[in-house]
Amino acid sequence: MGALGLAPSAEASAKAAFEPPEPSHFSLTGRSAKKVVILGAGVAGLATAYELGKAGYDCTILEALDRVGGRNWTIRGGDRLTELDGSTQVARFREGVYMNAGPARLAQWMVTMDYCRELGVDLEVFTNSNAQAYIYHQSMPAPVRWRTAKADVYGYVSELLSRATDAGALDAALTTQDKERLIAFLSGFGSVGNRASGFAYTGGSRRGYSVDPGAGEQTGTPLGPVPSLSEVLSSGVGQRFSFEFGYDQAMLMFQPVGGMDAIPRAFAAKIGRQRIRLGSVVTKITDWADGVEVEYRDGRGRTQKIRADLCVAAMPPHILARTPHNLGAEVQAALSTPNVTNSGKIGLEYRRRWWEIDEDIYGGITSTDLDLATIWYPSHGYGAARGLVVGYYNFGAQADAYAALKHADRERRAVEQGMRIHGAKYRDELVSSVSVAWKLQPHIEGAWVGWPSRQGAYQLLNSPAGHVYFAGDWLSHMIAWQSGALESARKVVTELHQRTLSTA
Amino acid sequence: MGALGLAPSAEASAKAAFEPPEPSHFSLTGRSAKKVVILGAGVAGLATAYELGKAGYDCTILEALDRVGGRNWTIRGGDRLTELDGSTQVARFREGVYMNAGPARLAQWMVTMDYCRELGVDLEVFTNSNAQAYIYHQSMPAPVRWRTAKADVYGYVSELLSRATDAGALDAALTTQDKERLIAFLSGFGSVGNRASGFAYTGGSRRGYSVDPGAGEQTGTPLGPVPSLSEVLSSGVGQRFSFEFGYDQAMLMFQPVGGMDAIPRAFAAKIGRQRIRLGSVVTKITDWADGVEVEYRDGRGRTQKIRADLCVAAMPPHILARTPHNLGAEVQAALSTPNVTNSGKIGLEYRRRWWEIDEDIYGGITSTDLDLATIWYPSHGYGAARGLVVGYYNFGAQADAYAALKHADRERRAVEQGMRIHGAKYRDELVSSVSVAWKLQPHIEGAWVGWPSRQGAYQLLNSPAGHVYFAGDWLSHMIAWQSGALESARKVVTELHQRTLSTA
Repeated sequence: MGALGLAPSAEASAKAAFEPPEPSHFSLTGRSAKKVVILGAGVAGLATAYELGKAGYDCTILEALDRVGGRNWTIRGGDRLTELDGSTQVARFREGVYMNAGPARLAQWMVTMDYCRELGVDLEVFTNSNAQAYIYHQSMPAPVRWRTAKADVYGYVSELLSRATDAGALDAALTTQDKERLIAFLSGFGSVGNRASGFAYTGGSRRGYSVDPGAGEQTGTPLGPVPSLSEVLSSGVGQRFSFEFGYDQAMLMFQPVGGMDAIPRAFAAKIGRQRIRLGSVVTKITDWADGVEVEYRDGRGRTQKIRADLCVAAMPPHILARTPHNLGAEVQAALSTPNVTNSGKIGLEYRRRWWEIDEDIYGGITSTDLDLATIWYPSHGYGAARGLVVGYYNFGAQADAYAALKHADRERRAVEQGMRIHGAKYRDELVSSVSVAWKLQPHIEGAWVGWPSRQGAYQLLNSPAGHVYFAGDWLSHMIAWQSGALESARKVVTELHQRTLSTA
Repeated sequence: MGALGLAPSAEASAKAAFEPPEPSHFSLTGRSAKKVVILGAGVAGLATAYELGKAGYDCTILEALDRVGGRNWTIRGGDRLTELDGSTQVARFREGVYMNAGPARLAQWMVTMDYCRELGVDLEVFTNSNAQAYIYHQSMPAPVRWRTAKADVYGYVSELLSRATDAGALDAALTTQDKERLIAFLSGFGSVGNRASGFAYTGGSRRGYSVDPGAGEQTGTPLGPVPSLSEVLSSGVGQRFSFEFGYDQAMLMFQPVGGMDAIPRAFAAKIGRQRIRLGSVVTKITDWADGVEVEYRDGRGRTQKIRADLCVAAMPPHILARTPHNLGAEVQAALSTPNVTNSGKIGLEYRRRWWEIDEDIYGGITSTDLDLATIWYPSHGYGAARGLVVGYYNFGAQADAYAALKHADRERRAVEQGMRIHGAKYRDELVSSVSVAWKLQPHIEGAWVGWPSRQGAYQLLNSPAGHVYFAGDWLSHMIAWQSGALESARKVVTELHQRTLSTA
């Protein structure tokens, strides 16, 4: 586009520039790569070690869990979940069935996509919206498919705005030509009648069919009856539409083939598994004049120490806030500042993909005002024997309500509610389930955090405390996204490398 | 849903019922399966043989081309294309690169999805719409991303309708509560300001960013400037939106993994390749009192004859109309009735997936008012080394204009136009291409047909002429869709089987 001076090249450069550290940088300065200890093998910690490793930094990652990835966690058959109170679930999913318990979708513009390319992680579409999925509000007599809801809302909006425009109600804002163009747009947008009909919306094929078009004389019967304008407005279906207009949620969205943990697994393979100490719980961080010392409890319960030139603390802030350190009262107060949000998911494994076979729903999300919030149909394995439906993905108070229950009760509640949309098969064809309550996950204890303000504490932790840097999605403007963690890691890597290059 | 009496079960039954023929049907009646000759190994012919074969019918398919599938044609490296005038192209695509020259997408509700499940054809999402792709009209200063166009149109529509509603212009149609609900909906739908601001649309994050949100102080810079209402209306971008509301085009859409021809290949494997005579051009159809005789020219140029009890002619009507037969003047006139539409595609193979790497476009379609009509980014192979962009998919006069050119000139024209959207790399990184002009494809000579009326000729051909049945998408209400061909095949199979069961 450069040659033509058109917009796309400008848009394409919207990503923050990043130059990975290289060994050659040291040959120019006479300085050398440092030893770095990284706290946490979540996405931020892994990306930090990966990028620093490109220039030969000697990185060691301490990770409290027995796996890499942090909240990027794909649960498969045989995996064990233990909550803070010791209660345990073991996933019994069949081969090929999995649940991304944490992050589950990537937007195209996010740097996560570039890392997938660089790491060789295969991608496929994540079905974030689907015209064939449902919207269900408890005030409605029945679930309605997204396509039907959109046809009705866009139809009536077009009818109303056409009439107001044609009647001159907007003449102060619209030229005669604007009015013609607006009415022409609305005619197609809402599929409404002409002026003589009062621009009436009367339904049509976009709503779907009660009898599909077919062969011979099968012309198809559009779905009816068409609800009234008042019924459509009171249903509230239109409130769901703007979700998919979001910069971070608009389709197309993507996921790694085979599970989201393909990303941390690929990072770990590049870093070298020998650099990652699993089951290592950080118990103390001490900043010295010439470096940093981290004390931790290893997998056998023994206390160990590691010394390094620099440290990157890529743990959740609320976990760091409980870890003894000598970084000062201001840092301690800052770490305690963000508010932790809970979220939860249940994975329901079915013996039959009834959503595809019976309801023609191949992926996507049903949105509800039930406390399950959303039901997700799988974005892979179309046509396979089994499949996993996410029976709830919710957060805040709704997630807390499920977290307060034992797993069996979470399942019962999710299934009872889901039956209101999908009927008895939602209970009868279930073969196994697993639920995660993020606030109850050891060493994580939350889904993501929010900052009361981006001043003060946020700014403080975006700078190093002595030899200790902080990294994570919680230090970005893309909280709860892996891309936030990745961008934060890149920022810290850049700053740490510049410091290394400029100091002896 | 049955137990609860909610809507979905009614919607789920929208498909036409179909009971495949079974061997047991004969044991009840004492009758036996017949010998059937099927003309054409396109989707309709294959499905006919497949379904009849379930009950033991002795089917033989005559196919003029050297492959099965008809218009369902996936072009890969090494494949040869010859047009009616004898001009030839050989595809030079690298392994894994292909173009679906004909049908390329499946809607979830279509029976094609069910056949994929039954035949074991793996599916993946076909990216029929993408917020990150462009809309480009020649009157616009630059291409605009779909997300940006939607934000602007929905923003101004919401502003205008909010103002008209609030000013009482629609009081005759709206109750006070309706008005409140409508304004609340529009607030989110258009992301517009409050009453005090005059419900003003002033842009926002949905348009996209010129600097993406990132780590630390990188809050992100929303894309600007926001065009005026008049500019948005005169651009005509909104006219593109309703495409994706169509019952047959709304996302999610699907494609077979590895190429659309997985469907005919799977049918052929189930039918048995020995039942399909490739390179067999039908030269005469004769209906006798006790059956039917078909004369054809085999692959070596020899005239052959085949006798059968019944025949299913699943060829394009305009090709049938040129084939000698004794089915009468009315049938002949009917076969000549539909109007043939042309369409064309060019596959541009690039050495680098610049649409992903430079422009963050992972699939989807750019819509234009250029005569290339649309540019399609690939729905598979994300992150791979190479990829194929469909440089035009057009029909009618636009397709005729390209069909009139030699391949090299088609490529030049498509690339020159595409450069207006994607710049010089659209030319410079191209490594090979292949173009198809459907009206110039031997034994097919068109993309699809249209009926001036569904009375008369259409009805006549939906009934058998003696022992000859007709099948194809052209005899359905889903013309140009494989599902139309499949539904037509099912209809003919049902009728033919009932006849067999009821006559000696």
